[in-house]
Amino acid sequence: MDSAWIRHKRGEAEGDGNMRMYDLIMKKRNGGKLEEEEIDYMVKGFTSGEIPDYQMSAMMMAVYFNGMDEEETLYLTMAMAHSGDMLDLSGIRGLKVDKHSTGGVGDKTSLALAPMVAACGIKVAKMSGRGLGHTGGTIDKLESFPGFSTEIPKERFTENVNRIGIAIMGQTADLAPADKKLYALRDVTATVDNMSLIASSIMSKKLASGADAIVLDVKTGSGAFMKKEEDARALAEEMVKLGKNAGRKTVAVISDMDQPLGYAVGNALEVKEAIDTLSGNGPADFLELCLTLGSHMVVAGGMARDAAEAEKKLRQVIDDGSALRKLADFVEAQGGDREAVYHTELLPRAAYAEEIPSPGEGYVSRIACDEIGICSLMLGGGRETKESVIDLSVGLVLKKKVGDYVKAGETLAVLHGNDKGKMEAAAKRFMKSYEFSDRPVEKLPFIKAVIE
Amino acid sequence: MDSAWIRHKRGEAEGDGNMRMYDLIMKKRNGGKLEEEEIDYMVKGFTSGEIPDYQMSAMMMAVYFNGMDEEETLYLTMAMAHSGDMLDLSGIRGLKVDKHSTGGVGDKTSLALAPMVAACGIKVAKMSGRGLGHTGGTIDKLESFPGFSTEIPKERFTENVNRIGIAIMGQTADLAPADKKLYALRDVTATVDNMSLIASSIMSKKLASGADAIVLDVKTGSGAFMKKEEDARALAEEMVKLGKNAGRKTVAVISDMDQPLGYAVGNALEVKEAIDTLSGNGPADFLELCLTLGSHMVVAGGMARDAAEAEKKLRQVIDDGSALRKLADFVEAQGGDREAVYHTELLPRAAYAEEIPSPGEGYVSRIACDEIGICSLMLGGGRETKESVIDLSVGLVLKKKVGDYVKAGETLAVLHGNDKGKMEAAAKRFMKSYEFSDRPVEKLPFIKAVIE
Repeated sequence: MDSAWIRHKRGEAEGDGNMRMYDLIMKKRNGGKLEEEEIDYMVKGFTSGEIPDYQMSAMMMAVYFNGMDEEETLYLTMAMAHSGDMLDLSGIRGLKVDKHSTGGVGDKTSLALAPMVAACGIKVAKMSGRGLGHTGGTIDKLESFPGFSTEIPKERFTENVNRIGIAIMGQTADLAPADKKLYALRDVTATVDNMSLIASSIMSKKLASGADAIVLDVKTGSGAFMKKEEDARALAEEMVKLGKNAGRKTVAVISDMDQPLGYAVGNALEVKEAIDTLSGNGPADFLELCLTLGSHMVVAGGMARDAAEAEKKLRQVIDDGSALRKLADFVEAQGGDREAVYHTELLPRAAYAEEIPSPGEGYVSRIACDEIGICSLMLGGGRETKESVIDLSVGLVLKKKVGDYVKAGETLAVLHGNDKGKMEAAAKRFMKSYEFSDRPVEKLPFIKAVIE
Repeated sequence: MDSAWIRHKRGEAEGDGNMRMYDLIMKKRNGGKLEEEEIDYMVKGFTSGEIPDYQMSAMMMAVYFNGMDEEETLYLTMAMAHSGDMLDLSGIRGLKVDKHSTGGVGDKTSLALAPMVAACGIKVAKMSGRGLGHTGGTIDKLESFPGFSTEIPKERFTENVNRIGIAIMGQTADLAPADKKLYALRDVTATVDNMSLIASSIMSKKLASGADAIVLDVKTGSGAFMKKEEDARALAEEMVKLGKNAGRKTVAVISDMDQPLGYAVGNALEVKEAIDTLSGNGPADFLELCLTLGSHMVVAGGMARDAAEAEKKLRQVIDDGSALRKLADFVEAQGGDREAVYHTELLPRAAYAEEIPSPGEGYVSRIACDEIGICSLMLGGGRETKESVIDLSVGLVLKKKVGDYVKAGETLAVLHGNDKGKMEAAAKRFMKSYEFSDRPVEKLPFIKAVIE
């Protein structure tokens, strides 16, 4: 006999109207459906600290096993979106389109995509985080431009978006604090990988950020959070449903992350690759991704009637240099050196560059994408804890990708580092991450699906 | 991408030998089996506070869904048993036999059973708790004897067992602190009802208490923790297996708790009923339970060759008054008034006694046993929180049980209370707890099974 049990029984029998987290955990554990007011109670109580972590983690594990249906997921998303500030973008003229990536290795998409769509007239008003991972977040990467800062006042943020079309701010506002707290808890209790929870975590922040339309960049493969394509598709469908149920235009593009995106992995190295792409010299896969996501953003933002027209516009702004100029304007507007956009030798550079010779010969059949990310982390290019200091200059640039033919001893990649010991360890690990085949390897489609 | 995830991946890839609770939660969540050293790590870390509650509650919910096998359950039980002091009963001569009840309404078994088996030569060295519930624990009930105390020094405890055959001590020693902490957490996170966890919670304390043999009193029915007989049987089998695997003689008796045990519910009222039973005037079901449990204790303790011989001895010690005398000796040895054993009017008595007239007529077909317990709680006879002060004098005495014929208005029970308001509320609730049938109701066997 125990106290919670007695309270539970008495409450039931006496028709006590007070909600109790214990009862909600029990309900979900037993396969029940949580009502809107129950989810509100849970999210508010957890955010304020009245509901302790240990009850919430038990609830999350119960959700992991018993799931949440479409309505529960929407209620959770809305409750988290409203748990803090809702960003007010009403000062910005025109349709605001936001983009979110589920993350991967070598993912520098925002750096090229934002200037491309802004050059087409779309308003990009982004809040970005630094986060943890193989490389830094978008903000870290942008700080490769000497002087660049995301600490700009709200007024200038709005003004910049109206004038240039792009502004990126660090997450200063208290956006979806419930999600932040809940994610931190799920992260240490092995309750991250549930489709409804992942979808509501992402979408609660997007909804709080106030954009009119949301384009989702969902990755799948060994370097992505969603290893299996069917999982990526399920997550994409869940998020698109959520976005629509919350009244926002929402599209998801599923693309391959079975090998790094483009060739560069590492902050300044990725910035350079984004600049190359805006200059018309980008890797094919990365360009394809920017054009696909971009055309959906341009259509959603009302700047083209269909994807074909949008893509034409996007190719145009690359060809005529206006996308690159947009990047320079944006960098300058946030205090950065616009010259570095045209002279990439001004970006941070590592002291040493070392070629990695191939240990095998044949067609590259597989690249352990996760492992490439960990090499970047080992070189100092990512954050392992919140306190880690990122070295923006380090990373690696692949020379061979899946399907390419390689002779033994030929260069697989170039490592950029500032510490010989770390470089040696990363090189050792890197060499184990490639597999080779005697026969030609079929290249699979890079874009897997568009969910809308 | 997240920090725990990165640590997890890096740890795996680098063959890092350090254990992490995150990995163990993930393993159990994914249906894996925890190794002995993993369970040891988890129990030690949780007890010391290094592993936080929120990780343990997520683990418990994963165990709720994916279960633990026989080995995992044994490892958990042993780890919890060794998490604090192991009681040293080596100063006590002869075989020590312990008894544990899973609890129910009107469960005064220890009060009669301990003197009965002690009168047959069995050594009963018990640590008892107060606990929460419809009535107090064994210690609370014993405190109905004026002056009785369980706060006795270790030496006197041993001496009393050697001299009289019984001693009961409050849980002063730090027995199985891991279980205490874990149970408190499970209690508020809806992770109590898992067979392996319940069994290991009970058995870890029993193993730490140092008895040579353990007799388990497992209840089933509406007033028991295990409502269904199949669940009670599964729990009994699990505990017997655990006890044997830990090297102790272990037997479980499954009995009915679909209605209160005996007639009395409430502390001093139950003491009186136990005394009546030791005097040869006890309720049939309660006597049957004491004889069944007792005969297994007497056989396990080597004082009879078989159950039939043991039962004969137990009936003998009731008939010749030696069991009742044993109770008086025991009460006296712990500072209580032995006269109250022979003059029960010296026990605490409530100010008011009120008869409850039957709202219906016919054969009693069902008593909502849980509800009877809650009536006792409402009168002040139990603890709802650790801070509650118990009123030892209050409670109720049934006049009719399942199968009895009742006329409308005939007395169903007598309520004993000190507060008219509380009595009125309890009476109202009580009247709803009986169901009647026009046709005679078959009485089902009281003892359901013996598992050994």
